[in-house]
Amino acid sequence: MEIKDYLNKQRQLVEDAFDSYIPATSGDFAEHIKAMRYSLEAGGKRVRPILCLAAAGAIADDTKSEDILPIACALECIHTYSLIHDDLPAMDNDALRRGKATNHILFGEAAAILAGDGLLTWAFDLLGDQQRGNLSANKRLRITHIIARAAGSYGMVGGQALDIASENTTFPFSTLQTIHRSKTGALITASVLAGAMGAGASKEQLTALEQYGNQIGLAFQIVDDLLNATATTKQLGKAAGSDEALGKATYPAYFGIEETRNKAKAAVEEAKTSLSLFDDKARPLRLLADYIYTRSN
Amino acid sequence: MEIKDYLNKQRQLVEDAFDSYIPATSGDFAEHIKAMRYSLEAGGKRVRPILCLAAAGAIADDTKSEDILPIACALECIHTYSLIHDDLPAMDNDALRRGKATNHILFGEAAAILAGDGLLTWAFDLLGDQQRGNLSANKRLRITHIIARAAGSYGMVGGQALDIASENTTFPFSTLQTIHRSKTGALITASVLAGAMGAGASKEQLTALEQYGNQIGLAFQIVDDLLNATATTKQLGKAAGSDEALGKATYPAYFGIEETRNKAKAAVEEAKTSLSLFDDKARPLRLLADYIYTRSN
Repeated sequence: MEIKDYLNKQRQLVEDAFDSYIPATSGDFAEHIKAMRYSLEAGGKRVRPILCLAAAGAIADDTKSEDILPIACALECIHTYSLIHDDLPAMDNDALRRGKATNHILFGEAAAILAGDGLLTWAFDLLGDQQRGNLSANKRLRITHIIARAAGSYGMVGGQALDIASENTTFPFSTLQTIHRSKTGALITASVLAGAMGAGASKEQLTALEQYGNQIGLAFQIVDDLLNATATTKQLGKAAGSDEALGKATYPAYFGIEETRNKAKAAVEEAKTSLSLFDDKARPLRLLADYIYTRSN
Repeated sequence: MEIKDYLNKQRQLVEDAFDSYIPATSGDFAEHIKAMRYSLEAGGKRVRPILCLAAAGAIADDTKSEDILPIACALECIHTYSLIHDDLPAMDNDALRRGKATNHILFGEAAAILAGDGLLTWAFDLLGDQQRGNLSANKRLRITHIIARAAGSYGMVGGQALDIASENTTFPFSTLQTIHRSKTGALITASVLAGAMGAGASKEQLTALEQYGNQIGLAFQIVDDLLNATATTKQLGKAAGSDEALGKATYPAYFGIEETRNKAKAAVEEAKTSLSLFDDKARPLRLLADYIYTRSN
């Protein structure tokens, strides 16, 4: 299995699922839903839903995709809403995302804020809906809680607040670690754990996967910092060099390009090491760790 | 029991619960949480949590408050987030709410958007957390789903999107009804149903309470329209006359003040009629219906 083929197949699976899991652009709220779907369908690597599916597959290869896909789509809704809100003029003020106009550029600020709110809320509609798949209420609720915790004020939202508040200030490296862990790492780890929980992971397996998630989350953010500093806007599909322009602290600013690259590589290796108790069903998780280091956008 | 005493007692119960149910303003995310708490603690009638508690009490008078309060607080988190986002410059651009500066005036736009995102996400953290109270996973999940549906793109968020898009346009009365039902009515009805589900309501009881919720939701929004047109900014604690200034369609604009008042009264009477199968435990719900008509802010 090549990672490229695997990613393409899984991305297709996730994107095909949108049509059944995301509101249709019809009825009273068609315009609003159009704005939600615009950002959801604008492409992207689908890293979080793919990690969720891969973690489920690492636990049990007979995991039903109709049980895990609603969770995978919920994770992508949350990630997409965070991008819409991060891009707003009051936040990072970005006009370009995934090579396309950002949501507020196309639909206006008010509609973009609401598209984000709608996607975030829809994630919990998907997670709370017992009609979608056959997971037990208990499993579903545990998954809901771990995702809410990771997405909220102690996780992604809190990290973004800290990130914005820290622009153009100097702060210790430990604060940068807190920002990365909460803004990016928490939801990536939750994506892995949610999929594994859905497939019935043991406590020991969850502990190992939490380690894995933390390390690839770290690698993911370090590589993001690297790409922002070294790639072109065309390669990224979003504004390159924006971190420096916004006065954001990054790994390259602390360590330089070379040492930053080493740190990303080390995190990926540690992630793979934490998978030692898993058999070959975890191969996609191992390949995903490598992909996170080698990706170019 | 006087409605005033009842409301004061219940409001106190809800506000006392915030300290245990809402993140503390300490640690890495203290500034962000401060912004969340500012709006949550700025007062307000606490109508949704009080309705939730009253509905639970109407089903079973031995309902444990530690089972229902997390749900009640989640509803208030969702309502408060919606006010923070509605007040943003890109939306209604309000500087005053509950007699105090709005969130973005005090904390800035980026922090206000994130305070809203944090409160919305925290609501689902509360709903998903099995450590809070002793509701079964099944009940808790049903409640989570009904609240997510009411708060999202087919409910409150969709209604707000429609409301914003409809400013300064003319549209049929049926669109105004859709806006009201989704923007305000859906979460009020969900508040009633969530409390009742938590207390173990039967299908028949839920059907009656859904009627009740829909009618008081309608009355609530009509009275909001009336107060916006007739009360002063001082009485309301928020900008009076803003509907007209923003070119919003309202009940008074369609029917005039007198007829609008009659419609609110009729909705309240219908709400009370739908409670006929309940005994005296539903007295708070009956009083709340009257209060919604007679309130002055």
